[in-house]
Amino acid sequence: MYSEDRPPMPRGARTLPRSYYTDPGFFRAELESLFYASWVHVGRSEVLADPGDYFTREIGEESVVVLRDAEGRASAFHNVCRHRGTRLCRSDQGRLPGALQCAYHSWTYGLDGRLRSAPHMEKVEGFRTDDYPLHAVAVDAWDGHLFVNLGDSPEPLSLHLADLPGRFAPWGMESLRLGARRRYEVPANWKLVVQNYSECLHCPPAHPQLNRLSHYMSGENDPPHRSYLGGRMDLKPGVASLTMDGTTARRPLPGLGAADRRRVYYYAILPNLLLNLHPDYVMTFTLWPRACDLTEVVCEWHFHPEEMARSGFDPSDAVEFWDLTNRQDWELSGLAQRGIGSRAYTPGPYSNREELLFALDRMVCERVQKRG
Amino acid sequence: MYSEDRPPMPRGARTLPRSYYTDPGFFRAELESLFYASWVHVGRSEVLADPGDYFTREIGEESVVVLRDAEGRASAFHNVCRHRGTRLCRSDQGRLPGALQCAYHSWTYGLDGRLRSAPHMEKVEGFRTDDYPLHAVAVDAWDGHLFVNLGDSPEPLSLHLADLPGRFAPWGMESLRLGARRRYEVPANWKLVVQNYSECLHCPPAHPQLNRLSHYMSGENDPPHRSYLGGRMDLKPGVASLTMDGTTARRPLPGLGAADRRRVYYYAILPNLLLNLHPDYVMTFTLWPRACDLTEVVCEWHFHPEEMARSGFDPSDAVEFWDLTNRQDWELSGLAQRGIGSRAYTPGPYSNREELLFALDRMVCERVQKRG
Amino acid sequence: MYSEDRPPMPRGARTLPRSYYTDPGFFRAELESLFYASWVHVGRSEVLADPGDYFTREIGEESVVVLRDAEGRASAFHNVCRHRGTRLCRSDQGRLPGALQCAYHSWTYGLDGRLRSAPHMEKVEGFRTDDYPLHAVAVDAWDGHLFVNLGDSPEPLSLHLADLPGRFAPWGMESLRLGARRRYEVPANWKLVVQNYSECLHCPPAHPQLNRLSHYMSGENDPPHRSYLGGRMDLKPGVASLTMDGTTARRPLPGLGAADRRRVYYYAILPNLLLNLHPDYVMTFTLWPRACDLTEVVCEWHFHPEEMARSGFDPSDAVEFWDLTNRQDWELSGLAQRGIGSRAYTPGPYSNREELLFALDRMVCERVQKRG
Repeated sequence: MYSEDRPPMPRGARTLPRSYYTDPGFFRAELESLFYASWVHVGRSEVLADPGDYFTREIGEESVVVLRDAEGRASAFHNVCRHRGTRLCRSDQGRLPGALQCAYHSWTYGLDGRLRSAPHMEKVEGFRTDDYPLHAVAVDAWDGHLFVNLGDSPEPLSLHLADLPGRFAPWGMESLRLGARRRYEVPANWKLVVQNYSECLHCPPAHPQLNRLSHYMSGENDPPHRSYLGGRMDLKPGVASLTMDGTTARRPLPGLGAADRRRVYYYAILPNLLLNLHPDYVMTFTLWPRACDLTEVVCEWHFHPEEMARSGFDPSDAVEFWDLTNRQDWELSGLAQRGIGSRAYTPGPYSNREELLFALDRMVCERVQKRG
Repeated sequence: MYSEDRPPMPRGARTLPRSYYTDPGFFRAELESLFYASWVHVGRSEVLADPGDYFTREIGEESVVVLRDAEGRASAFHNVCRHRGTRLCRSDQGRLPGALQCAYHSWTYGLDGRLRSAPHMEKVEGFRTDDYPLHAVAVDAWDGHLFVNLGDSPEPLSLHLADLPGRFAPWGMESLRLGARRRYEVPANWKLVVQNYSECLHCPPAHPQLNRLSHYMSGENDPPHRSYLGGRMDLKPGVASLTMDGTTARRPLPGLGAADRRRVYYYAILPNLLLNLHPDYVMTFTLWPRACDLTEVVCEWHFHPEEMARSGFDPSDAVEFWDLTNRQDWELSGLAQRGIGSRAYTPGPYSNREELLFALDRMVCERVQKRG
Repeated sequence: MYSEDRPPMPRGARTLPRSYYTDPGFFRAELESLFYASWVHVGRSEVLADPGDYFTREIGEESVVVLRDAEGRASAFHNVCRHRGTRLCRSDQGRLPGALQCAYHSWTYGLDGRLRSAPHMEKVEGFRTDDYPLHAVAVDAWDGHLFVNLGDSPEPLSLHLADLPGRFAPWGMESLRLGARRRYEVPANWKLVVQNYSECLHCPPAHPQLNRLSHYMSGENDPPHRSYLGGRMDLKPGVASLTMDGTTARRPLPGLGAADRRRVYYYAILPNLLLNLHPDYVMTFTLWPRACDLTEVVCEWHFHPEEMARSGFDPSDAVEFWDLTNRQDWELSGLAQRGIGSRAYTPGPYSNREELLFALDRMVCERVQKRG
């Protein structure tokens, strides 16, 4: 249960004014200061199994190619040919034949991004292929999760993640494998999705199924960190995991101790990864802001390969539970976006159970102001 | 017939420049000065038969809930929860169980708008439910028509309507009941819809059916009033009402004298109610500006309950006549919008039969300038 | 083959910055300086066979009516009634009954644009029909191609076309007749369509069919002219024309000499006509910029009437060949638009075979700056 002696919210803590959620200019500033200048979750390492495997992602208005290079390292590049700017990779995902070739004039780049050949450029005075590598993007991995950073001089990912890698090591996330993926268009600002994820006061009215499995006042939040927010909730007695009926045929993940087998952890790793750790599976929500009032959310369910190999493995008890819960949340987030858009909206009071939301507001504003 | 000694238009009276119809900034100024600051028609009292009955309307970008409260009075509120701004009512119309409850965190408001309960807020220092009523909106009724006013200190509705209530009392509008509703999206500025409604010079080329039933030069306009414009036309001999064939099985409304049984009255009650009074039915056109070049129009046909109770009652002779006429008008309004959007458009001369249009232009400009 | 001693590109010649292709403000400036102030191709004279025949075109945001007047001359007018601005002609193409009549209030204009009648305006003090002709637009024809100029004091079309009429006289374009038309929406800036058309370096990777019929390095470009860019390519031995299999049942156009029967000419006549001259047919691409990232392209295939009269005439060998090639080009143009939209895009080097693209850039910038 929530501690009753937790520090109260600052007196007068309130939601922020309308423009924070509805102003296209503020949204653009967020793209600049958060999505183009910090570590953004892009997907899982397992997708890049072999050299030449790639996927593309749209970060704000930028298309980035993430690939496995010839030496087996993950690399990332802007998806833009250095000749006349043409987009290089057209598919969401695929395998490159040892090089990236532009479909327009056949400029060809190695998997390391270096320009290998540029037909008909040899006659151009002063032209050197070394001057035209693909524009590189920083990439790094944590326990199976890939992140890129479009900024000029990114801090190390390890600094961004702080103590999370140690704390979440027992789940063995790198060893897990994708069991299901669903994609949603949420008609709400990306921060409303994070805030909806960061409190369970809405669980009793909005999520009767979830509320049967975990008491909404169980667990506790961590003190907010500069790059993540989160906490845990407890499963009710007799409940094995968050699934449609609270039971599961899956064994707990092998590294978990007794306490973690009774809990679900929810963390928002800013700006765009919501990580949801269950006794028997790990869920990732990746947020892609498309407009100040539109967010694409990609949900993935990751399971232990030994469970997936067992006959009769069926992820649908977890998938259907969360798909139902997600749809309830997206509707509420959309209602919040629409209501906040009213000129009658005025900032309202946060309760003591909404301290992560208050923390998010401050962190986002600090980042935007520092950048501005 | 139009009087030939009516005062002529001011010399050089012309339509207004392009921006009046096409500039999103001017459109926004109109929302501010007319739709957010004067009496706007929202619907009929009969919809709110019992306490808890409600409907919602989108006025510009604002959502308003209009409801019947516990004492039987009509009330109106911004559709925004005072906690985190969530939209409260999701349906166009419905019945509330004695209270408005936010779907997100169960903040609960009485039908009088007062906050009754706010879970988990009791621990917040200084929090008092009395401080968080729903934001109220002024509401008033005239003869069965409901109006709201989003402004801070609205003038009385009776002042806005001036002499109309007395003049239209014979139609007994409050006693009438809805017989049909049609909804249209008109690709034109809302003022072009009002202007199209306010002259019948276009009737011979555009409305051959209407022109068979009433001579376009019959009747006369009232002198323009600061909040309404209108006049009347005469039915041709042998024509009983505006229906597909000019006949009707319906008896005239019981309060009408002999003269009014031979006439059709057309009034634009600014900014958004077009009222069309026939011998045997009353029509309302409610205008909802959606963009400088898009207007939603809701048409309703209202009949006497005794006629509706008669076996064989069929409103379709009136509905089909006006649906046909409306579609002719919406096409012309759309052509006007597109032509006016050209840089080659220059203000053109108004004839003496277009004095209501000229009056509308001046009234709108005065309102926008006063507000600016 | 391209001459190897052609003058090289200026050292450091590069593509232009992102805004040139993506900024709505620059796009608007191009409309002003190029599409509203120079000769724009609108269609073929043959469409206006008889007095009263007309077609309409959308040039940027302007609608223009082009018609054959009573004396048999082509005339053009803004499609805007002088009364209340209503758009006059609603169809893309049609025949007028000797006059243009506004559907709204029956203002009626002669085919010469003069106002003939304006019902109910006779009472308006000072009103004279002579004061309200349609706003005229300059129109002129070249060898069957119609051009309009929305500017105030257009230079003669002959000055704009310079030496082209003489050079292309052998194709007898005025005598040709329409055999097929296709319409495309290209998700790219109009200049990317012109640039794609103005070099064949992309032909080997992008157009295997075309590349089988003509070597991409054959032919030569003309020195750029201030209002047109172009050159020619040679058909490979045994190839009769650009068709699906390089053969054709059509005889060469009767005026062509031996050399021109072995060549295909590609000219961009700025801003919006791409003219493609084959031994046996002439193609026109008319470009209609709809947004900075959207261009409508109308392709027409024109044949000699004697060929069209022969039994078994079938234009599909030419139509299918170009439809396939067009779709390849539109995809590449779209990829260029999307890649250039990235903040990672930086101007890239032009090769010596892209001199027409470099010339286009300079011409457009000069025009926009002169106007600005």
